[in-house]
Amino acid sequence: MNFPSKLVEKAAENLSFLPGIGKKTALRLVLYLLRNEKKYSIGIGQSIIDLINNIKFCKKCNCISDEEICEICKDPKRNSHVICVVEDVRTIMAIEGTMQFNGHYHVLGGLISPMDGIGPEKLKIRELLDKIEKKQVTEIIFALSSTMEGDTTNYYLFKKLNEFNIKISSIARGISVGNELEYIDELTLGTAITSRVPYENSVSN
Amino acid sequence: MNFPSKLVEKAAENLSFLPGIGKKTALRLVLYLLRNEKKYSIGIGQSIIDLINNIKFCKKCNCISDEEICEICKDPKRNSHVICVVEDVRTIMAIEGTMQFNGHYHVLGGLISPMDGIGPEKLKIRELLDKIEKKQVTEIIFALSSTMEGDTTNYYLFKKLNEFNIKISSIARGISVGNELEYIDELTLGTAITSRVPYENSVSN
Repeated sequence: MNFPSKLVEKAAENLSFLPGIGKKTALRLVLYLLRNEKKYSIGIGQSIIDLINNIKFCKKCNCISDEEICEICKDPKRNSHVICVVEDVRTIMAIEGTMQFNGHYHVLGGLISPMDGIGPEKLKIRELLDKIEKKQVTEIIFALSSTMEGDTTNYYLFKKLNEFNIKISSIARGISVGNELEYIDELTLGTAITSRVPYENSVSN
Repeated sequence: MNFPSKLVEKAAENLSFLPGIGKKTALRLVLYLLRNEKKYSIGIGQSIIDLINNIKFCKKCNCISDEEICEICKDPKRNSHVICVVEDVRTIMAIEGTMQFNGHYHVLGGLISPMDGIGPEKLKIRELLDKIEKKQVTEIIFALSSTMEGDTTNYYLFKKLNEFNIKISSIARGISVGNELEYIDELTLGTAITSRVPYENSVSN
């Protein structure tokens, strides 16, 4: 593309590196920023710079945080002996939204994915083992995506953790609430049948 | 959503104001920025700030530019007596890409759209009339979108410009190059028939 301005070109090029934003969308965003109030558009740029310069990672759970220890790890009302293993902060936000979990989290920072060159050594697995070795943990819950990478990571962690005398569980896989059976894929329905639970346990809350 | 960090919340909220970016996408972008190299993520924020602080609007054509007068208006090889009226810089980039136009442009900065509260007074129409009154112009070409707003703006401009003794034209509407006739909508095909051109004119280049 033949840009009328080097500033526009640079901003559009930078924005087009973001996932899901192509060259045309980037130009649309730049024009939108130019049309908008100056204060507001500068605020967007400044909030990105502030974010990168000031963000911290919680020393306990590795979650992104404004301070050395995150709000969840600091909360004395939460059970620090139950740890839910997640990929990133998005899962934490989703689980917190359910208000069904009162333990701590451990953020792996990714999933094992040989295709993308991510081996176990790139994830925060050593830190998880440290916590367990210090005998601070009674139960580990895996809450990873139901994908090839999630399953691989689950299996790797299970092998590593199995030698310790702790309870290891994974979040349940089955049919979603509100789903009609005839539209569910075979794998999910198969898992739901083999993982059936006593009826009195299946009615939540 | 319950954000683990005020910095993340602010950046995600700011990004979610951009068109086409919702709350979940904004959070995905923020996490992507955090995962990436620091220098590169800060570069994105900084290029937005630089853009807003340093961008200018060409004093002749109103197009965004790095200097007081844009590259196109400065070019002595271009014909300043033919002015192509466009909505914004994207049309200029598209027309420049065709390499079929050697005149100047005039950017309106929008289209008349009563639904969005944009009347003619919000567009750079006065500046266009000034150029014509100074007798610098021999031909005006409308290159606006083929939408209700584009047609309204075309009609309004035509009424305003008709009193001057200049040639007024609009870019041709008809079937796109490569289109098969049976799939073309009726309005376009109807326009293409009523706007038929002598065969020797229809073969471009």
